[in-house]
Amino acid sequence: MIGQTSERGRRRRGRSAEAAPAPSRDVNYRQLKNPFPLMEVFPADQIADMHETALRTLQELGVKCLLPEARRLFAKAGARVDQDTEMVFIGRDIVEAAVASAPKSIACHAGARHRDFTLELGSLVFQPGAGAPNATDLERGRRPASGQDYLEFLKLTHHFDVFQMISPQVEPQNVPTHLRHYFTTQAQMELTDKFPFFFSRGTPQVMDCFEMLSIARGLSDDEFQAGAHCYTIINTNSPRTLDIPMAQGLIDFARNGQMSIITPFTLMGAMAPITVAGAITLSHAEALAALTLTQLTKPGAPVCYGTFTSNVDMKSGAPAFGTPSHFQASLAAGQLARHLGLPWRSAAGSASNINDVQAANENQFGLWGCLMAGATVIIHSAGWLEGGLTVSFEKMICDAEVLNMVAELCAGAQAGKAEIGFDTALSEVEPSGHFFASSQTMERYNTEFYEPHLHDYANFGTWTERGSMDANHRATAVWKSILSDFKAPSCDSDRMGALHEFIARRTAAGGAPPES
Amino acid sequence: MIGQTSERGRRRRGRSAEAAPAPSRDVNYRQLKNPFPLMEVFPADQIADMHETALRTLQELGVKCLLPEARRLFAKAGARVDQDTEMVFIGRDIVEAAVASAPKSIACHAGARHRDFTLELGSLVFQPGAGAPNATDLERGRRPASGQDYLEFLKLTHHFDVFQMISPQVEPQNVPTHLRHYFTTQAQMELTDKFPFFFSRGTPQVMDCFEMLSIARGLSDDEFQAGAHCYTIINTNSPRTLDIPMAQGLIDFARNGQMSIITPFTLMGAMAPITVAGAITLSHAEALAALTLTQLTKPGAPVCYGTFTSNVDMKSGAPAFGTPSHFQASLAAGQLARHLGLPWRSAAGSASNINDVQAANENQFGLWGCLMAGATVIIHSAGWLEGGLTVSFEKMICDAEVLNMVAELCAGAQAGKAEIGFDTALSEVEPSGHFFASSQTMERYNTEFYEPHLHDYANFGTWTERGSMDANHRATAVWKSILSDFKAPSCDSDRMGALHEFIARRTAAGGAPPES
Repeated sequence: MIGQTSERGRRRRGRSAEAAPAPSRDVNYRQLKNPFPLMEVFPADQIADMHETALRTLQELGVKCLLPEARRLFAKAGARVDQDTEMVFIGRDIVEAAVASAPKSIACHAGARHRDFTLELGSLVFQPGAGAPNATDLERGRRPASGQDYLEFLKLTHHFDVFQMISPQVEPQNVPTHLRHYFTTQAQMELTDKFPFFFSRGTPQVMDCFEMLSIARGLSDDEFQAGAHCYTIINTNSPRTLDIPMAQGLIDFARNGQMSIITPFTLMGAMAPITVAGAITLSHAEALAALTLTQLTKPGAPVCYGTFTSNVDMKSGAPAFGTPSHFQASLAAGQLARHLGLPWRSAAGSASNINDVQAANENQFGLWGCLMAGATVIIHSAGWLEGGLTVSFEKMICDAEVLNMVAELCAGAQAGKAEIGFDTALSEVEPSGHFFASSQTMERYNTEFYEPHLHDYANFGTWTERGSMDANHRATAVWKSILSDFKAPSCDSDRMGALHEFIARRTAAGGAPPES
Repeated sequence: MIGQTSERGRRRRGRSAEAAPAPSRDVNYRQLKNPFPLMEVFPADQIADMHETALRTLQELGVKCLLPEARRLFAKAGARVDQDTEMVFIGRDIVEAAVASAPKSIACHAGARHRDFTLELGSLVFQPGAGAPNATDLERGRRPASGQDYLEFLKLTHHFDVFQMISPQVEPQNVPTHLRHYFTTQAQMELTDKFPFFFSRGTPQVMDCFEMLSIARGLSDDEFQAGAHCYTIINTNSPRTLDIPMAQGLIDFARNGQMSIITPFTLMGAMAPITVAGAITLSHAEALAALTLTQLTKPGAPVCYGTFTSNVDMKSGAPAFGTPSHFQASLAAGQLARHLGLPWRSAAGSASNINDVQAANENQFGLWGCLMAGATVIIHSAGWLEGGLTVSFEKMICDAEVLNMVAELCAGAQAGKAEIGFDTALSEVEPSGHFFASSQTMERYNTEFYEPHLHDYANFGTWTERGSMDANHRATAVWKSILSDFKAPSCDSDRMGALHEFIARRTAAGGAPPES
């Protein structure tokens, strides 16, 4: 619960309790507003050209849409559809109507009201690294992710207030695929009250997840459908392809009033043009196609625009993250999102194979690109290694420190008379003196500064005596301590009983295999 | 010479020579403009209050000024001086006149014209970590810095174009203090043609350095004094004390037309008020006092405003860097610098004891504070550990990668018709195809992306086969390779001979011990 206002207040009251009440800081990490100025990489007329080219791409080049139901929806709206090639050519009027009906603000309902948040331009939400097949930590090494890894990452995600959403974290590969969504949904209902994630792997799984969530939250069908209670992430198959489970997910989530976060994952020079401008134009076209499908399904359905675009290394073809091109791609996507007026997601990330300095620098470099791009949701903001093939326990702890510091900046600072402190500080201390005992310091020393969970300020001698542990190794102790102290939020036992019954019944009936 | 336009152009011309000429990118790292939007931490009226409070501090509380000559200059300008307490009370009119006469733009003359740069609001200059008593690397461990360390850091600093200035790096502790300035000046004249640094440790040393520089550059006294050919860094003794060598340095550099970079080094909660607003108000007052002394010495003398303010850990009193408070302090100082209209320096840095993830994250976090604060010069931007007690060879390489990526962002990007590439990319590739062979890719693959010197994009298998080296250990190979390949810029042998003669003569005469 690091970053929780009440906790921090309690923790810091100690010595100052006798003195004047310590000025409190607003350190609510749960509902953040982005305080950073927005950066533009392209002038407005070039952004308009990119938007126009994306519309032209959809109309003239078209999108391959593998799901017949999706093609029917596009055709019904007036799009030209070639059933043989599965190509859909979407006129600009159809796209523009969809953009107009997409909500500019999305209220996200979590399991507890203090976990609710709103997605709109200006808000700021973080997710840890997502979707990795592997997990790694310094004690157990790199391995195919298991159910235990999933549960442990879920607990870590719950612990840090700065992660406002649950991400798909890692694939619990030892859980059979036809039962995996029961496992991950039950865990999200029992171990956290944050906004949950469900994969779009076919209607049967998605409907199971919606039902499990409704049971666990005590929602009627109408209540469930009236607001966004969960989300999915939709990746297009770049270039210009929308596969069956992704198209089905867009339809299923939209039809039930739940949120899709649309993310063409485009690598410049590989599945996308080599330029930032070309890659983001393609990504924009694909995002608009997917967004349009949600609005054709149900006008007003919650949908989050998005991109995740970085470059490949042209010598090896390997993906790179946290690069200048990645940074610029985030900026360009942000300009296009504002062109539409819609909330949107971007991503940090790292190509490094371990939690080292490269991993830290790439992730933070990508993060600042997202922040200055005004991203509403920043995915893969912690723990993501190997371009998404692994999530690291230690990296999650290290990156959470950076995100907490960003959250502290969201709270801002003041320079009123009390803070400038001419009488309570400046005039109290003689030349070459110190401020340890000034009135202003005495009043504030317990609350003024962010307290890190990982960073160590001991001097070299003390640090050496303590074992010369680098941040990576200290992070091991941090995540182990969080896991051993973990307490799940309280659950309604009747609802959880009903959830268990549902899962048992569906499991006995054979579960729901993923569709493709 | 990484980042040098011509080098990069050559290096990348290979495969594309047969095709159309590759579009060239402007990757001049030597004269950068800050492309990042400026962030404000306080509203304008609070910044005005801070400035007013600083003026009031100087007038009512005064500054302790240990150098009689400085007190005379202040007294002559009308300041009230108490010779017994060495206190100087500086009226706002004196300060305001000094701010008015300080140059808003400073042309810095290096040893070669392509190394010249201008300091003014909007320009962006980086220095590596500076002033450390120790050096460290993975092969030789942490040790008191030696002459060899000084020379090696100088070569590394010269190598990366993104370091436009030479910093004081490390203290060569095995060189006697009365001869050390000969050693460091000779090295700066022989191994690099970048803008050099001289310590202010008394007039005899400073005059020696000026003379050595004039000899090496072939400058007459008039030519030397007509422009800024070198600089010093002036730290006040916070709070509100200006010691003898620092005051003398301000006078000596100003009198000879050379640049002082003024840097109150104020730690919130220790030598400065605990609040960002209080600490920066104090820093501002001290910077104004020092700046005033330069202008009383010689109106129009080149002087760079500055601050370096972070917080201490209130539990231990240990300094912390790359924190939210450090970030906000940079923002506040930037607002005050713009209030004055003057170029200014800020600083990144790390409290970590080794080149680990903490070191990377702190340094980069502090760096973004400086960038969004609009700092003209960013000191300690690479290599600085332990809050300045050590400079690390590996960290210098790791941080230089981040700075190079920032420099790439300075070059910007375009989204013209060629970059959007409807005809040369988007329409050439079928759905689910790839862009490896599109016309646009073929034209640009050799120049489009930044090529890292350290970051590794190999996949986990390949990386494991190659020895599972983290960035820190790879950095060792990088700095060793740079040092072994190092070629100094060409020197005029007559001038260098004269320089050696000067040093031999002065050494025989007993050198020049530092003054205090």
